[in-house]
Amino acid sequence: MALMHYPVTDKNGEVICSAVTNLDLHDMARAARTYGVSRFYVVTPLEDQKILAQRIVDHWVTGPGSKYNPKRKQAISLVMITDNLEQAIREIEQETGEAPEIVVTDARPQAKSMDYAGYRAHMDKGKPCILVFGTAWGMTKEFIETADIVLDPIIGPTDYNHLSVRSAASIILDRLLGR
Amino acid sequence: MALMHYPVTDKNGEVICSAVTNLDLHDMARAARTYGVSRFYVVTPLEDQKILAQRIVDHWVTGPGSKYNPKRKQAISLVMITDNLEQAIREIEQETGEAPEIVVTDARPQAKSMDYAGYRAHMDKGKPCILVFGTAWGMTKEFIETADIVLDPIIGPTDYNHLSVRSAASIILDRLLGR
Repeated sequence: MALMHYPVTDKNGEVICSAVTNLDLHDMARAARTYGVSRFYVVTPLEDQKILAQRIVDHWVTGPGSKYNPKRKQAISLVMITDNLEQAIREIEQETGEAPEIVVTDARPQAKSMDYAGYRAHMDKGKPCILVFGTAWGMTKEFIETADIVLDPIIGPTDYNHLSVRSAASIILDRLLGR
Repeated sequence: MALMHYPVTDKNGEVICSAVTNLDLHDMARAARTYGVSRFYVVTPLEDQKILAQRIVDHWVTGPGSKYNPKRKQAISLVMITDNLEQAIREIEQETGEAPEIVVTDARPQAKSMDYAGYRAHMDKGKPCILVFGTAWGMTKEFIETADIVLDPIIGPTDYNHLSVRSAASIILDRLLGR
């Protein structure tokens, strides 16, 4: 799976590069590890943000955190920092010999979105895929349009659809891979 | 629902009072609002922690945050800070005329736990309930034993069961109340 910090939008719809959030890395890596995700790409083109993210990863994977909490090390070890999604896609292609399906999630309803039972059944065929989450106010419309599949927004019994990306990612992994 | 900061255990099993975490309040309030939860009790007996939690709430409900992000205000408005669970239970009893069922969630397998489909069907009967989440390394064994119902741990297809409380709460609300 991947967490995009660019290209995403701010609350006014402007394209921005969002800041890396420590707890996104922790919560999403722990959920990824729980649900058997192979790798968690943290995508940002900003040099200082890549350095920050790598410092967090190093603390838990090789630094003092790895001894303090080995379970956390197992989760954070899944994190790989990349400049863009293409880099992640190339890596998956090299490892699996097949280009992954790009599966995008968004809180806003999209023209052609797939439900979770539908995509879960499709995943069972075993094709590699990359599940892409957006930070801030979500990925740009143009970026979403390049995806192979867009999943339905997560909606509860109310009209409120403003979950954190940490919550949405956890729920989506549970819907697609939970027992 | 309620988030307990006491009585919980640390990584060595000692009983502690954990610190309030800003993103727990945000993520869990947003999930609560999404899934139609009536109130989100943040439970801590510590005076300084209650003041900190109330400052966060005030910022988003009546302070500058309420104008900056009215959607966040809707979520954080559900938060109520209490000294202990009894206080929350009494309030629910006063509002509904009935003592709520105390439903506890824990990452560790418990002797008699109920699955999500089972409790979802039970909830449909409409009895008030309070869904209780623990911080740190989870609620004490003694506290869990006082609950009416313990829900199954959230387990994925791996043997790793170390989700954040933010992730676990989101998944549990989705399993119990999602569409």
